[in-house]
Amino acid sequence: MNGAEGLIRTAVASGVDLCLANPGTTEMQLVAALDAVPGMRAVLGLFEGVCTGAADGYARMTGRPALTLLHLGPGFANGIANLHNARRAHSPVVNLIGDHASWHLAADAPLTSDIPSLASPVSGWVRRCATASYLPADGADAIAAAQDPPGQVATLIIPQDSAWDRCLGPAAPAKVRAREAVGDLRVEAAAAALTSGAPGALFLGGLGLRAAALRAAARIAAATGCALIHETFAARVERGAGLPAVERLPYFPEQGADRLRPLAHLVLAGAREPVAFFGYPDHPSRLVASGTRISLLAEAGEDVTGALEALALRVKAPARVALPTPERVAPPSGALTAGSLGQALAALQPENAIVVDEGATSGLAYFALAAGAPAHDCLTLTGGAIGQGLPAAVGAALACPDRKVIAFQADGSGMYTLQSLWTCARESLDVVVVIAANRAYRILQVELARAGIAEPGAQARALTDLTHPALDWVSLARGMGVPGTRAETAEEFISAFRRALAEPGPRLIEAVLV
Amino acid sequence: MNGAEGLIRTAVASGVDLCLANPGTTEMQLVAALDAVPGMRAVLGLFEGVCTGAADGYARMTGRPALTLLHLGPGFANGIANLHNARRAHSPVVNLIGDHASWHLAADAPLTSDIPSLASPVSGWVRRCATASYLPADGADAIAAAQDPPGQVATLIIPQDSAWDRCLGPAAPAKVRAREAVGDLRVEAAAAALTSGAPGALFLGGLGLRAAALRAAARIAAATGCALIHETFAARVERGAGLPAVERLPYFPEQGADRLRPLAHLVLAGAREPVAFFGYPDHPSRLVASGTRISLLAEAGEDVTGALEALALRVKAPARVALPTPERVAPPSGALTAGSLGQALAALQPENAIVVDEGATSGLAYFALAAGAPAHDCLTLTGGAIGQGLPAAVGAALACPDRKVIAFQADGSGMYTLQSLWTCARESLDVVVVIAANRAYRILQVELARAGIAEPGAQARALTDLTHPALDWVSLARGMGVPGTRAETAEEFISAFRRALAEPGPRLIEAVLV
Repeated sequence: MNGAEGLIRTAVASGVDLCLANPGTTEMQLVAALDAVPGMRAVLGLFEGVCTGAADGYARMTGRPALTLLHLGPGFANGIANLHNARRAHSPVVNLIGDHASWHLAADAPLTSDIPSLASPVSGWVRRCATASYLPADGADAIAAAQDPPGQVATLIIPQDSAWDRCLGPAAPAKVRAREAVGDLRVEAAAAALTSGAPGALFLGGLGLRAAALRAAARIAAATGCALIHETFAARVERGAGLPAVERLPYFPEQGADRLRPLAHLVLAGAREPVAFFGYPDHPSRLVASGTRISLLAEAGEDVTGALEALALRVKAPARVALPTPERVAPPSGALTAGSLGQALAALQPENAIVVDEGATSGLAYFALAAGAPAHDCLTLTGGAIGQGLPAAVGAALACPDRKVIAFQADGSGMYTLQSLWTCARESLDVVVVIAANRAYRILQVELARAGIAEPGAQARALTDLTHPALDWVSLARGMGVPGTRAETAEEFISAFRRALAEPGPRLIEAVLV
Repeated sequence: MNGAEGLIRTAVASGVDLCLANPGTTEMQLVAALDAVPGMRAVLGLFEGVCTGAADGYARMTGRPALTLLHLGPGFANGIANLHNARRAHSPVVNLIGDHASWHLAADAPLTSDIPSLASPVSGWVRRCATASYLPADGADAIAAAQDPPGQVATLIIPQDSAWDRCLGPAAPAKVRAREAVGDLRVEAAAAALTSGAPGALFLGGLGLRAAALRAAARIAAATGCALIHETFAARVERGAGLPAVERLPYFPEQGADRLRPLAHLVLAGAREPVAFFGYPDHPSRLVASGTRISLLAEAGEDVTGALEALALRVKAPARVALPTPERVAPPSGALTAGSLGQALAALQPENAIVVDEGATSGLAYFALAAGAPAHDCLTLTGGAIGQGLPAAVGAALACPDRKVIAFQADGSGMYTLQSLWTCARESLDVVVVIAANRAYRILQVELARAGIAEPGAQARALTDLTHPALDWVSLARGMGVPGTRAETAEEFISAFRRALAEPGPRLIEAVLV
């Protein structure tokens, strides 16, 4: 068999069964291998950012890497933004980049570029395959590297001769390193902090936001009185009825700092110390006050759940705690605003939904309101590279075909990777896309004001305004084969959303906000 | 004034008057400066690849750089593919990347990444500004560097504190290096090669494809009998009635090698030695046979026109040559195929049009047929990173508001940067977008066959097929405010194209090919 087939056989043997592809000429042998090897599903994206963002969403829901199949440096570059988000989410992703045949690089043909330089900023592991005989083992290494806790992006550059030359056959799967348990000293220190009598909080992230860890955290809170706070942009948080409620650290640094200031102790569990999303002249990078002591319970790549359970035991937490069932919000009526849209989503989202929240400023209200919704997963924009929501919804739907995926998507951000809608249509994905159409880069209007630009000039206004012309998302969806409808009142939205939830997807609703 | 204003004032003083922007929080002071300083036009793209591709198109038509305004590493990354094309086109482009405040980088906030590593593969010049006092001079240096012959991408990374802190005022424009004249020895050698009596050709690229250079080349051909051939993917070629006809080197390497094999001499004027676009197992990278001697007359960054004129003098070329007027093709009728679509374009395109040709396989017929069209410019895909056509059309239309721009766009490639349509609508650009809708990645179907995969499997077929669902480009255009229509026969297309040419743009025609 050729190297390409050896690689794909290795991937299947390693438990990888999805390839998100936007191939070109240098990937033709790899494309052929997708058919030659049973067990690898190929899904086409019409833009590389769809593939990489879908791999991120898939990884968040399964814990396993998908392959991406990308075309040389420029094709890879189109996927970088969402790989940046995947890196921040600690998502395992394996990129396969077809490159020129090794002997052709010296010719500096038009598509030649420095792929390792492009790949390194988003990849924890980068390798260029040397020869076809090594390609299967390189693939096994990449797949294991991607799963190295807490998970990372692994990028394998495949000169085309490595794909078309013969290899000896597939390689054995490489061993994936297990998460390491947290030592007693860390548990001791965290217990001392949270039982000191001074106000404390557990700051949760990563696997600390899954049900088992959250239950342990709730027990710790019951025993110690500590607060539970989670990182502002969580890769995935399990929340809603039946799950412990955790506060989300506010986005703006002064609000985040205000929330943290009263704390004498902050114990990190799966999260890094919180920092400001952006630097402002009047605010330091650190949100934690100098009087707050930070203890590390567990890093993202360690056994966060085990650490929380050990801590619960150490603080003599009750074996179970009653979780107050937050009241579910009622559906709103009247004008469609960011608030009423969020309320409608929270009021109507079904049990076990996966909500991919790239609502940006329009999503702020939703998150708090959805605490009383039925149990669900919420995926957010970990790396700040907008255009992640629709692709991640694609990946989540591929990962969990039995669950309803709701892509709650700001209109400005949605435009970066709108090609995702086509993949939703082709694969008949059960995704309801809700476009929060405020027809502005609202966050930038806010940031202009925060920067002291009280009365932006005509060009600044034009650069943050999306009304001229207004995007027509129903037409955009139709153009890619997704049925869509527009809602301009809460009632219209609720009616459209109920219909969309009742039918298999994909569906799109453009919620035009006042 | 702050650094941002100092920078923009410097840019205007340096002759830069267009900023293609997709800003974020770290660019707010730069956005405000666009209003504070008269003379800088800001144009919004809804995806960064629109901005960078437009800067490339603008540079090809004006020879001057535009600014791009991009948001940290991920925002820049979205623009890399079209910067790769700009690099291969030797287009002067100045990227301004807003980064975190210098003191905030250590916090490793979510949007932090290694920007120089991302920027270097596409940039001939990269600098991170150290402090606001240096920012205006850094800008002047970037603008001069971009214009360093033959032109390159210059990337200036601007920590936000450099933008908001005070500076002393604008900097003086930096000196742009002039193109160097070619020495007599090179002219002698080229003359000896082309007058040797053995078959020879001038291989033209870069500025060698503009009218003045082409007229000199035609005189040389008249005197020596040499062939005139140009690089397969020219940044810009002036062609059509009244201009010398130049052969385009065929795309596939065996065809390119066949064309070159009879030549004893190949004289390079503004072009590099031709190489295969991709490596194939049965073909070397070099297209030139071992028996062909290569002479360098002028590199892309040298005075190509002057060198050709000197060579014409040296071979005692006639002062003028009569240029045969190729017959213009007649409009076709009947089925709409790649051939008849190209014929219709060539038959109807107006005098002085700018044709941005990313027709891919559907564009092959057009290029030859358009030799008899009225004088026009043709811009092609220099770097092979697809998704360049629509953005370059935006840039060409901004550069030349009095000329009709025709974006001849393959459907698969068009999807990468379809957000360009919105900018066409917002800026009322006089662009006629012609989508060649063959509903396939046809080149990949060809390449699968070339790779020996005679009967592709179901997944390979699905990865190269765009019929399920078919894209509806008229709806996509409507979604972004561009009036569109669909044509399914040559007659329908001709009627729609005539109407679109008669009206100010933008307009889109989806030509559904059989």
